[in-house]
Amino acid sequence: MRNRVLSSALLMALAIGVSHAQGAWQPLPDSAPAPADNPTTAAKVELGKMLYFDPRLSSTGTVSCFSCHNVMEGGDDHMTTSAGVHGLKGGRNAPTVWNAAFHSVQFWDGRAPSLEEQAKGPPVNPIEMGMANLDAVIDRVRHIPGYRPHFEKAFGAGEVVTMDNAAKAIAAYERTLITPGSPYDRHAKGDKNALGGQQARGMETFAAVGCTSCHQGPAFNGPALPAGTGFFMKFPSYPDSPYVAKYRLADDPGRFSATHDEADRGMWRVPTLLNLEYTAPYMHNGAVKTLPEAVRVMASTQLNRTVTDAEVADIVAFLGALTGPFPQQTMPRLPPTPGDLLE
Amino acid sequence: MRNRVLSSALLMALAIGVSHAQGAWQPLPDSAPAPADNPTTAAKVELGKMLYFDPRLSSTGTVSCFSCHNVMEGGDDHMTTSAGVHGLKGGRNAPTVWNAAFHSVQFWDGRAPSLEEQAKGPPVNPIEMGMANLDAVIDRVRHIPGYRPHFEKAFGAGEVVTMDNAAKAIAAYERTLITPGSPYDRHAKGDKNALGGQQARGMETFAAVGCTSCHQGPAFNGPALPAGTGFFMKFPSYPDSPYVAKYRLADDPGRFSATHDEADRGMWRVPTLLNLEYTAPYMHNGAVKTLPEAVRVMASTQLNRTVTDAEVADIVAFLGALTGPFPQQTMPRLPPTPGDLLE
Repeated sequence: MRNRVLSSALLMALAIGVSHAQGAWQPLPDSAPAPADNPTTAAKVELGKMLYFDPRLSSTGTVSCFSCHNVMEGGDDHMTTSAGVHGLKGGRNAPTVWNAAFHSVQFWDGRAPSLEEQAKGPPVNPIEMGMANLDAVIDRVRHIPGYRPHFEKAFGAGEVVTMDNAAKAIAAYERTLITPGSPYDRHAKGDKNALGGQQARGMETFAAVGCTSCHQGPAFNGPALPAGTGFFMKFPSYPDSPYVAKYRLADDPGRFSATHDEADRGMWRVPTLLNLEYTAPYMHNGAVKTLPEAVRVMASTQLNRTVTDAEVADIVAFLGALTGPFPQQTMPRLPPTPGDLLE
Repeated sequence: MRNRVLSSALLMALAIGVSHAQGAWQPLPDSAPAPADNPTTAAKVELGKMLYFDPRLSSTGTVSCFSCHNVMEGGDDHMTTSAGVHGLKGGRNAPTVWNAAFHSVQFWDGRAPSLEEQAKGPPVNPIEMGMANLDAVIDRVRHIPGYRPHFEKAFGAGEVVTMDNAAKAIAAYERTLITPGSPYDRHAKGDKNALGGQQARGMETFAAVGCTSCHQGPAFNGPALPAGTGFFMKFPSYPDSPYVAKYRLADDPGRFSATHDEADRGMWRVPTLLNLEYTAPYMHNGAVKTLPEAVRVMASTQLNRTVTDAEVADIVAFLGALTGPFPQQTMPRLPPTPGDLLE
């Protein structure tokens, strides 16, 4: 399935329009939208949480969704690029799972139109969870008898232990991984004391410098678009920026690698900025280690601007106001393993 | 520090004496004992939980205590032997962390006299968490500024971010990982309806066959002994058992590898049997895949007995009654990573 893609020029126009129409500073909603065919239910969320934490869904039995998308921290893994089965390294920095539910497409290149489709990717990626195919993944789940009652509770009786249902459950769980209530959110809802002085100044700088051209909306990942329609931007937009060579920012062709369409070369989904202080290192290749440097890089490569140290400090202070309270979660209890599962 | 060791003959006598003195069937206590210099406090438990789940304490940033001692499942990792950094495989099956607090020594060979000392082992084991030394481990923790307030809350002001305190916190957390309230516990407390018919029959068979010679006491890991004094038994006791060759049960010299004392050759700490249905595969080398086979192996190698299929089924039913309710736990929130942590 190919996602619909809007041209970046059109998107930019749309973005500005949406931004103006909805107001520049919007708080994160208290719940995430769910598709009509996968309403979020408590039973699905609980099952999805179990599957999310279960390393038995990987070929070696050692890697789970949680391994690279650590919900006890920033929803990623603090690595430049992630380590999958056998310690193999991926090519891109793990995006945070926090507030992924507010992205209209998934992965850095937007190749999955939904959380449900995204969930089917890593298990069969040979350098991530390394299973041969999705049938092998769900066979593993079926081989753990304790999962069946949880699938039946979530999806009813019958042949419900399917990969589609497993993906639906994981997506339902991920829709609970949202962080409304940041100082920024409270400010956007009218609390005049929510931001500190430097944070408030940083917010103005953030807009004045032009960051909001792309990083706008409640999750700072662009305008509201229909599910499956991605908000993509060229990165780097100014390839002569010295940071491009320094951090090898143009080596990866971005969305082109998913579509093989020349128009997509160097195009990337605009990522959320929420909880950014938890997600170092930065950029699609994890090459930029600190938040101040990330601000300098983006100003240079995307806006052709050199920002002062004071501007950087203010923007970083503002970005710190985008950290929301992570919801308190109970640990799932996974069903026991038959001794011959991994033979 | 060398643990005190009692001879197995003396221990056997002591065991039988203790067993008779305290009554054959004892329920698991509702709390675990703590050493005088490390009383269990809520602040220590919370810090310990954070450290327990933190993969940044490993050289690759991918392996935590939780990786091999999964408290969402059986407190182990459902692997024959565990996978550490770079996918390296250990030599022994991961023992469960559930109720480890009721062991008087730690590790299969009892080489650590306490949970505190145990916690300092895996981080610097080259095939587990792979750090160069304990200084490097605590340097990692110090490099994550968000940890300091949690250490201060647990241990007071000053130079409290130390490896000793980190180990104390992890041990304090582990003392909360206990599972009183199993059907067996309820039976031992007088609930006549706690066990099913086959479970009750299995309990009698378990004792009649002789399993209780070693697997006695509230955690089925031997008599009450002072902290640091291990309860060790020869395994296999009957080396001519056909299972010894089949499962290579005599290849590992056991406690000898820790002490290099010939008297310790083939000696092993008697492990707990609680939550056994969650901890397949079995034995120090994880060679035995299922619980019924484990029962046959132990009867043959330790008691020189062949058990009937009916006896095996009854004993397995009884062992199922040793699964306690895992306490509901909230997930810790780990402090964010400076981008250059793993450079």
